[in-house]
Amino acid sequence: MRPIDFPEPVKALIAELKRLPGVGPRSAERIAVWLLQSPKANPAQLADSLLAAKDAVRPCAVCGFFATESGCDVCDDPSRDERILCVVEQATDVLPLERSGAFRGRYHCLGGKLSPLDRVSPEDLRIPPLLRRIETAVGEIEVILALGSDVEGEATANYLAELLRGRNCKLTRIAQGLPAGGGLEHADGLTLLRAMQGRRSL
Amino acid sequence: MRPIDFPEPVKALIAELKRLPGVGPRSAERIAVWLLQSPKANPAQLADSLLAAKDAVRPCAVCGFFATESGCDVCDDPSRDERILCVVEQATDVLPLERSGAFRGRYHCLGGKLSPLDRVSPEDLRIPPLLRRIETAVGEIEVILALGSDVEGEATANYLAELLRGRNCKLTRIAQGLPAGGGLEHADGLTLLRAMQGRRSL
Repeated sequence: MRPIDFPEPVKALIAELKRLPGVGPRSAERIAVWLLQSPKANPAQLADSLLAAKDAVRPCAVCGFFATESGCDVCDDPSRDERILCVVEQATDVLPLERSGAFRGRYHCLGGKLSPLDRVSPEDLRIPPLLRRIETAVGEIEVILALGSDVEGEATANYLAELLRGRNCKLTRIAQGLPAGGGLEHADGLTLLRAMQGRRSL
Repeated sequence: MRPIDFPEPVKALIAELKRLPGVGPRSAERIAVWLLQSPKANPAQLADSLLAAKDAVRPCAVCGFFATESGCDVCDDPSRDERILCVVEQATDVLPLERSGAFRGRYHCLGGKLSPLDRVSPEDLRIPPLLRRIETAVGEIEVILALGSDVEGEATANYLAELLRGRNCKLTRIAQGLPAGGGLEHADGLTLLRAMQGRRSL
């Protein structure tokens, strides 16, 4: 009896899907089967959109957000405040901030966060263009570190704080504390500690 | 200030990724960003493997597993026992069973499970070819229902049991009980109930 396995083209597809972030071996198999067998699936359309996006989109050389041939929606908008620069990890972090309406300045996407385990060191992040932007700014600007509150986000914030100290910028960091709508009974100890440390007088 | 959003090609890619099973809006964004910005990503290769698999692979008309131009590895193997037919939900369920070495008969992939919530009714499953296989079998065959132990798997097993009763087959179902390597303290109540109900004399 021959051992049964997926045909080669299916194995190749599963191998490619497994490389995607957050997709493990089982999800990859499940997605591949769905793509090849579900009447609702359209693998050709997914392939087309991959190639179209790959051709049309590149990181903006200034801010690192998605840019197309027609430019970068963030950098090309003259109504955005040039004196405030919000540093985020990923281009995807821009949209939640935009939707919140909490910010109307410029962005700088690092393209990742420091993580020795994943072999991400400062050279892998878009730090030199950040320094250039600060150095060439007219007048003092505010640099807001809007990084995650996980270990890697903290490490990245600390590294940047060290690096930017004494330069032509006022350095701030977004607050950590109780998330909106959550009671104290749902918050973990570290969140409560941060919320307590960050308390403000009324 | 113009609202910021992903460029159209990125939005189209995210929309396609969101359609994949188990991929929500946030994962779709994360995967799209990785595909377009990570130096490790190769969106063209993913697109190629999608198109190659789509062209080369189709469900076997008999068993529903993946077949290519050169045929179906399960159905074309004469050394497999034709008198035992294992009914599974998905083509992906074949491989874990094969790896376990617990089965050397033939398979029948239903292509899903009954689920009114997802609008999957008996007409959406490969049930007519299953009935044909049982009717055209030489001598009595054993049909093993190897379906999941979730609500939909149970419903599908009950439906098939009702449908197949009295036909030219001996109907069995794989056992439910304590998973290997797990102590009683980790098992939920329903698992323990099933394990108790399925107890066997020694």
